[in-house]
Amino acid sequence: MKIEMRHGAGGEAMESLIKDKILSRLSWADAEVPLSALDDASVIEDIVFSTDSYTVKPIFFPGGDIGRLAVSGTVNDVSAVGGLPIAISLGMIVEEGLDMEDFERVMESIGKTSKEAGVPVITGDTKVVEKGSAEMMFINTSGIGRRHPLLDENLRIAEKGGKSRGKWLLDSNIRDGDVIIVSGYIADHGVAVLSGREGYGFEGDVKSDVAPLNGMLGKALEVGGVVAVKDPTRGGVSNALNEWSEKSGIGMIIEESRLPIRKEIDAACELLGIDPLDLGNEGKYIMAVVPEMAEDVLDAIRSTPEGRNAKIIGKAVKGSEYVVLQTSVGGKRIVEPPIGDPVPRIC
Amino acid sequence: MKIEMRHGAGGEAMESLIKDKILSRLSWADAEVPLSALDDASVIEDIVFSTDSYTVKPIFFPGGDIGRLAVSGTVNDVSAVGGLPIAISLGMIVEEGLDMEDFERVMESIGKTSKEAGVPVITGDTKVVEKGSAEMMFINTSGIGRRHPLLDENLRIAEKGGKSRGKWLLDSNIRDGDVIIVSGYIADHGVAVLSGREGYGFEGDVKSDVAPLNGMLGKALEVGGVVAVKDPTRGGVSNALNEWSEKSGIGMIIEESRLPIRKEIDAACELLGIDPLDLGNEGKYIMAVVPEMAEDVLDAIRSTPEGRNAKIIGKAVKGSEYVVLQTSVGGKRIVEPPIGDPVPRIC
Repeated sequence: MKIEMRHGAGGEAMESLIKDKILSRLSWADAEVPLSALDDASVIEDIVFSTDSYTVKPIFFPGGDIGRLAVSGTVNDVSAVGGLPIAISLGMIVEEGLDMEDFERVMESIGKTSKEAGVPVITGDTKVVEKGSAEMMFINTSGIGRRHPLLDENLRIAEKGGKSRGKWLLDSNIRDGDVIIVSGYIADHGVAVLSGREGYGFEGDVKSDVAPLNGMLGKALEVGGVVAVKDPTRGGVSNALNEWSEKSGIGMIIEESRLPIRKEIDAACELLGIDPLDLGNEGKYIMAVVPEMAEDVLDAIRSTPEGRNAKIIGKAVKGSEYVVLQTSVGGKRIVEPPIGDPVPRIC
Repeated sequence: MKIEMRHGAGGEAMESLIKDKILSRLSWADAEVPLSALDDASVIEDIVFSTDSYTVKPIFFPGGDIGRLAVSGTVNDVSAVGGLPIAISLGMIVEEGLDMEDFERVMESIGKTSKEAGVPVITGDTKVVEKGSAEMMFINTSGIGRRHPLLDENLRIAEKGGKSRGKWLLDSNIRDGDVIIVSGYIADHGVAVLSGREGYGFEGDVKSDVAPLNGMLGKALEVGGVVAVKDPTRGGVSNALNEWSEKSGIGMIIEESRLPIRKEIDAACELLGIDPLDLGNEGKYIMAVVPEMAEDVLDAIRSTPEGRNAKIIGKAVKGSEYVVLQTSVGGKRIVEPPIGDPVPRIC
């Protein structure tokens, strides 16, 4: 048996690779949020810790580049479980022959994004491999954080709803009635990278959403009642909602008419035969909020530049194990996590 | 200008890439041990943080594999500044077509080494890239740690020598008279990887030293008086000593006759025309110790399996800026950091 592309696609094949081949060997230690939780970040001794490798192709794409992606992705993962990011690491694998100008452009972007997020790069490593041994450049960023100072109060407000939640914003926290918010237009990143790669010519219209979201999330935590936050990257919103549903043991109903999708993205997805729910986002969160705080949290998110197009898209419902899409024409369909990735190498 | 192999070789070209192209853009935040210190690990808000990407070729080599290397290297970096490692992250970039058996063998090795070190993998990420886009597998591990509980007492003993040292075991801590210890035979790893790659046939005799050293270092800290610890990987002992010398603003005298080198490694290096001082090690520390504690620290190190061949190899001397090798035949030569890497892709 060989490793295949679908093993890295963020869907079912990856899940079984991780569970059967990796976790069985590595998951031996206790931690507050352990490796086996497969959440956006883990927690040990009150330190939030997360890692991501970035192999996006091409390294420059409409609206962003691998550097902005690497900083944003890890800042967003640390923040998603309720962490306040302190610092990130930067591990680079660079192919011999890369233009120094391109290298510098990526460094510039990393510096700029890290300042925008307020999270410094504190440790790093650079490896160079022979031409043909890697594609231009791969980046790994890991991130560390403390517990967000607003998290206690945020969760206390969630408990007012009569449901006890844990100490962190985990995938398993969602209960019946929780309202699901998406922080803006979906699928922008996936289409932008595909467009940059294949030269489909959507470029003028389509830009990646890649951005750090720690500031936006901070505004939501000020309001309170947020119980789970997730970064719908590989596998898109489909995969993220299914992970929530599975780990929380609850169903979800999503209203298609409420999904924020740009017209041009919808058209591109139509043309390519790709479901926008399966495409990765790099500057969006999905958030689950107790119903009584949902409108206030939505307003807070919409007051930020990253969240101005946020929408309530559905809610968690007991008595089902599925993520169900209520279609615009009145039908229902089950949203499955994608098995392979419709667009590989987007992050 | 293009990125070249020497930019990742751990010598002067890499140093100028890092200083001119990277630090200038990324080094904007204050930290206890900042990015710009270019030490084995950094420290922010009392959390030790380090990262390394591993591109070793081949991924299996005499005495080890990329998994054992990735765990050991990061555990050793976190420990080297005086950290007690808490956890590591695991970011993998796997090439499509890798045998699942090889993948599992690496996972097994990661699990085993992480248990040996007592440091769990707590967060991870797996990316798959198309065949031809990476070589078998690249790994990034980042590590976090707390301040070692023995560090205060260890450094208090160093201060007895009349020299005030900082709070961490930094490259810049070394003062006149400090004794330099190497924890065992040098250059084993570099020759083992080269042998595995090129099929030189040294294989029967030569094995990599790759191992976690946090246990061994703990024994040395129990004795006290250790002021600096460094992992002589890329660029070897030459580069490590020169970094110490430059950052501490002090010269060093190393006695060639005291350098622990296995006969077969010496012969292989002779044959290949490589200076064993320039070759990477992955299971060795160089340590600087106040003179009055040097013999006791040496004994403590020698009581451990990883350190049983440790030796005192020289000392720091003021009035010079150079690392000088006192040769066995009575001459002297300046040990320069290697400009390129005699054996690329050993880590």
